[in-house]
Amino acid sequence: MKATQRLLIGGQWQDGEAEGFAKQDPVAGDTLWQGNAASEAQVGAAVEAARAAFPAWARRPFAERQALVERFREVLENHREDLATAIAGETGKPLWEARTEVGAMIGKVALSIRAYQERTGERERDLGGAQAVLRHRPHGVMAVFGPYNFPGHLPNGHMVPALLAGNTVVFKPSEQTPLTADLTLQCWREAGLPEGVINLVQGAAPVGQALSAHPDIDGLLFTGSAKVGGLLHKQFAGQMDKILALELGGNNPLVIKDVPDQDAAVLTILQSAFLSGGQRCTCARRLLVPEGQVGDHLLDALSDAISRLRVAGQFSEDAPFYGGLVSVAAADGLLAAQDDLEARGGTVLSRMERLEEGTSLLSPALVDVTGLELPDEEHFGPLLKVHRYRDWDEAIRLANDTRYGLSAGLVGGEREDWDDFLLRIRAGIVNWNRQTTGASGDAPFGGVGDSGNHRPSAYYAADYCAYPVASVESDELHLPDQLPPGVSL
Amino acid sequence: MKATQRLLIGGQWQDGEAEGFAKQDPVAGDTLWQGNAASEAQVGAAVEAARAAFPAWARRPFAERQALVERFREVLENHREDLATAIAGETGKPLWEARTEVGAMIGKVALSIRAYQERTGERERDLGGAQAVLRHRPHGVMAVFGPYNFPGHLPNGHMVPALLAGNTVVFKPSEQTPLTADLTLQCWREAGLPEGVINLVQGAAPVGQALSAHPDIDGLLFTGSAKVGGLLHKQFAGQMDKILALELGGNNPLVIKDVPDQDAAVLTILQSAFLSGGQRCTCARRLLVPEGQVGDHLLDALSDAISRLRVAGQFSEDAPFYGGLVSVAAADGLLAAQDDLEARGGTVLSRMERLEEGTSLLSPALVDVTGLELPDEEHFGPLLKVHRYRDWDEAIRLANDTRYGLSAGLVGGEREDWDDFLLRIRAGIVNWNRQTTGASGDAPFGGVGDSGNHRPSAYYAADYCAYPVASVESDELHLPDQLPPGVSL
Repeated sequence: MKATQRLLIGGQWQDGEAEGFAKQDPVAGDTLWQGNAASEAQVGAAVEAARAAFPAWARRPFAERQALVERFREVLENHREDLATAIAGETGKPLWEARTEVGAMIGKVALSIRAYQERTGERERDLGGAQAVLRHRPHGVMAVFGPYNFPGHLPNGHMVPALLAGNTVVFKPSEQTPLTADLTLQCWREAGLPEGVINLVQGAAPVGQALSAHPDIDGLLFTGSAKVGGLLHKQFAGQMDKILALELGGNNPLVIKDVPDQDAAVLTILQSAFLSGGQRCTCARRLLVPEGQVGDHLLDALSDAISRLRVAGQFSEDAPFYGGLVSVAAADGLLAAQDDLEARGGTVLSRMERLEEGTSLLSPALVDVTGLELPDEEHFGPLLKVHRYRDWDEAIRLANDTRYGLSAGLVGGEREDWDDFLLRIRAGIVNWNRQTTGASGDAPFGGVGDSGNHRPSAYYAADYCAYPVASVESDELHLPDQLPPGVSL
Repeated sequence: MKATQRLLIGGQWQDGEAEGFAKQDPVAGDTLWQGNAASEAQVGAAVEAARAAFPAWARRPFAERQALVERFREVLENHREDLATAIAGETGKPLWEARTEVGAMIGKVALSIRAYQERTGERERDLGGAQAVLRHRPHGVMAVFGPYNFPGHLPNGHMVPALLAGNTVVFKPSEQTPLTADLTLQCWREAGLPEGVINLVQGAAPVGQALSAHPDIDGLLFTGSAKVGGLLHKQFAGQMDKILALELGGNNPLVIKDVPDQDAAVLTILQSAFLSGGQRCTCARRLLVPEGQVGDHLLDALSDAISRLRVAGQFSEDAPFYGGLVSVAAADGLLAAQDDLEARGGTVLSRMERLEEGTSLLSPALVDVTGLELPDEEHFGPLLKVHRYRDWDEAIRLANDTRYGLSAGLVGGEREDWDDFLLRIRAGIVNWNRQTTGASGDAPFGGVGDSGNHRPSAYYAADYCAYPVASVESDELHLPDQLPPGVSL
């Protein structure tokens, strides 16, 4: 598959009419995609195309929409390696991991069909002379805003349920990952999706602003930063007719209660904090370690493992644990964040360094920030802050000391500690003796606090893609045996 | 049961400290409740009490919460007639209808338990060495704002699911229906609900404003006007951590396609437009009637039936179809609305009149407004507007010509018309050959457009009362058989 470098509006590939932009591989530096952003008029045309395609798409029997989505799955399977290469190339993640992302896109189809039936779908009950029928209806035109860290899987996790429910889509991918979006849309076209059912508008913030402000969208499904999510929440205030689903960030705690197996604890921390170079929204950002010897030893072992962790180009034959950050600028930001923590009094236990000049390859950082007053920020990269705590209550208090609440983890402890943790921790993904990353697609996914707006995705994405319509229906109109009080005809 | 005339905060009945107010029976004129509104400090104390009660309540096993709610149901059954009398007295609805409302409160318990299990609850899957567990957690302190038209049933429909899920509640009933709230809370106390789990703050807008603005509530469940709902939606903008569920109004269409049985059609219209004196949010407000003879005859028969419809005091021995409006002021508003429609060029087919001086008893109004430009307003009373239409497409266009979308009905037509209606109409309750009123509690309830914010209630109330927490958990921490790429320990 080759990139079109274009937009897709009403089934027609066309050049963007606004400013040009390009995407480079953040490690190798090659240009992967180069084209023009959508103009405001093109965003409007995309919404119009989705609106025009909506009635016919919504009226199709579910089985036909399902068949099309299943054909899309087959096309994905055929282009698996092209997609994985594109994802690895533009996100910086290792090829092995990009392949699992394509696997998740493929797996999403069956999960979404099951969720549609189980969470929404149709149900009928006989009332004697009439039927009570519960159906679910699509909202209409859904704007989907994709993030850059899973440029295939995460927008796919909105789009597949949205299409199954009968919505049409205008997709604005991150401007950091235009290529994956380009290829994904080609897969949809190859699967035979009718014109206008998904439209693609490439570009950065101006495209997003034009789309989110467009009066004719019926909803917006967003995965991205808490800052933009908060702005959207304000922008949609008073527009009750539009559905808004926000999946935002986290400042996620991983609490070490004790260390039953030091290697396993270290691996759990590495997988929680540094998988995908820390570019997962479920990544642990704060490691809570007990004061004392056990904690000291664990941190020594962790630093040691960090020093041996392989970080390298996505396509290295000797596969790295993680590759580059999404861009050189993102890597600059993480280095600056480490400097800032140090300036605020943090002690660097493992220092993050740029591994090759001009690339986004960074070694992991481990910074002890115990007792410091820090802004409650999500550092979207391989930077783990350590807080030493005195007792269990302090650990829980520190863990919950964030406006976010996406994921949290506990390592060690007994069943009663876990029960207590579960009851007291404020987060939507809470794991025990397992990494915080790698949420399963057959569970709902979402967080509390500023991590979202209580429209959980993944298995519950069905819920925000359709609204219920309750009917009592009968093809016969007749008088009941008895008239209600006070009526005479 | 006798009214306490007080507030309930942290299990203590206490007098309100703000201005006094009273509720009269809108037909007989007796004072039913007289007390003082909650001060801002008392609203704060109620939130604090709910906060203090939350951890213990949330930690109870579900079975214990269920047992308490089931005990509440028994208490309701014992006080059935007292509650029905209170509801009839303060809303103006006939005693027979108030009894069905208490029945709905009782029925809500079993439905809510089933919905909790089916929509939320707990689910476990073995992963081999770990468990994937899906749980649902309460949000915390929920503010519940009740409407006056179903002062027992509708707040109960928020509170029972909220309590089952483990939330605690601060309840602000409508200032038009303090008595029903007073008795309901006594029932909860009699059932043994722990102190602070539900708190009652009586009063009008200032109490609502203090409660909705309180920083320590975790959510607000509101049934009421679109105007207030829209203000709340704006007020909650940017506060993503708080759940807001809005059930608002409608300007609901009832479309007459043809008239297979004239008496049955007339009865369906009466039940749709005038049940509860038009004080149901699902009531038909706009009757769409084909031009020509069939339509003319139907309207004649309807006017005729209206002239014979019995409207009288709630406790009349000869039971009325409906009783008084909730207040004399509400009745004044409806009379003014009829005058306004007439001034805008409407033709009054059946004239609404006050049946007894000084009461809220009104006869129904039927006003032909065909072709007029009217504000898209919900007249919450026995006032039905008639639009004559030329063809099916015009009927659908007129039916959808509203910013709301709560209920809609079709009378007559063939199966293919119904299928078409279902696909084209924008509403959450869509009935065929059945009245638009009287939604079933085992279906979700909600509307589109300005009728709500896509947090459907009734059977789906479980969804907004809890958030999902997905866990992968194991009581053992050990290394996997194979380390991930790039890791050496």
